[in-house]
Amino acid sequence: MADFTPTERTQVHRLPKRGVYDREAVYRILDEGLVCHIGFVAEGQPVVIPTGYGRKDETLYVHGSPASRMFRALGKGADVCVTVTLVDGLVLARSAFHHSMNYRSVVIFGKATVVEDAAAKREALRVFTEHVAPGRWQEVRQPSEKELNATTVLALPLEEVSAKVRTGPPIDDEEDYALRVWAGVLPLDLTPDTALPDDRLPKEIAVPEYVRRYTRKRG
Amino acid sequence: MADFTPTERTQVHRLPKRGVYDREAVYRILDEGLVCHIGFVAEGQPVVIPTGYGRKDETLYVHGSPASRMFRALGKGADVCVTVTLVDGLVLARSAFHHSMNYRSVVIFGKATVVEDAAAKREALRVFTEHVAPGRWQEVRQPSEKELNATTVLALPLEEVSAKVRTGPPIDDEEDYALRVWAGVLPLDLTPDTALPDDRLPKEIAVPEYVRRYTRKRG
Repeated sequence: MADFTPTERTQVHRLPKRGVYDREAVYRILDEGLVCHIGFVAEGQPVVIPTGYGRKDETLYVHGSPASRMFRALGKGADVCVTVTLVDGLVLARSAFHHSMNYRSVVIFGKATVVEDAAAKREALRVFTEHVAPGRWQEVRQPSEKELNATTVLALPLEEVSAKVRTGPPIDDEEDYALRVWAGVLPLDLTPDTALPDDRLPKEIAVPEYVRRYTRKRG
Repeated sequence: MADFTPTERTQVHRLPKRGVYDREAVYRILDEGLVCHIGFVAEGQPVVIPTGYGRKDETLYVHGSPASRMFRALGKGADVCVTVTLVDGLVLARSAFHHSMNYRSVVIFGKATVVEDAAAKREALRVFTEHVAPGRWQEVRQPSEKELNATTVLALPLEEVSAKVRTGPPIDDEEDYALRVWAGVLPLDLTPDTALPDDRLPKEIAVPEYVRRYTRKRG
């Protein structure tokens, strides 16, 4: 697949060296993230709502209730901006001014379409479940027809997309390197704690491997 | 301070039991988060951009470059929606349909104003730095006048605000509790790894306590 072509909206103007249009690099960020922020315009006002998602090939899927105002608006073809952000660390510089964060973010512009076909919808839900916990889909009860009908799945093509990435140490003003203040990076990571079995789970059902060794790291 | 009054935009319609309007609860979420997602409308299109922030009393501060298109638009009083989301865990149900996440999110609507007064601006930058790493501001070189001029600070009043919170175990269909599949919650946390000193840092400058014991947990 070809890399993304910057458009007027996805061209990174400020700090252009942070702009990333490499398709595989963008996909790795999307595959590592858990939550996206969906932006849309409702009666002229911006609205930003967090939600889960999944990716397959060149499509991002989100799902929700048919009763949700957001999903109804997006299903009708409203313009949407979907942003995924991973925080990788605090960048602690010697001056307040040069403090920063290491991060990776992806911004997607476009219009979503409703996935109507039952098989395609089921596949999107598989993608969704596997995005959250790879290995999970095989183990759980599959969606019933009633559940499929109670779910709106939206597909957003990954066409107008860019990423921004900051990595590395603080960049201080030359004279500030002489200051006697600690400087560096504090890496941050979304990490799992011990799994909490449901109260009604029989004791003999062990925590599956994909939960015990859970990580969001990809590629 | 009084709690937030739900408006047409902040009333949680779907799953109303997840809606939170308690001011202190909202502030705890804002104080724990590191990144917000700012939504605004540019030429009729939604745009969602991640950025750092800080809170003091009833005001949320964001800052950026005067050259940023977003900051110029917001400084002119464009409508804005700012969303902060904390992911607390995966909710692994016995059916694909009932999978969910535990999370806390805050949505703020309003219009930002530019902080022009130099003292107020400096105070906002202190709030900003202390939001990222409490204890940091005292140690680092303070902003120069030139740096203050190179920073746009926006203030957004915390007036039209709501939070949504999901906690607890999966809620499965009654007949699914008999299934032999592991179910429960996998807690997730944004946690620090070992601090990485800058290459140019003298060896004898130790990692400060507030970095060594860093946590986002608040309250």
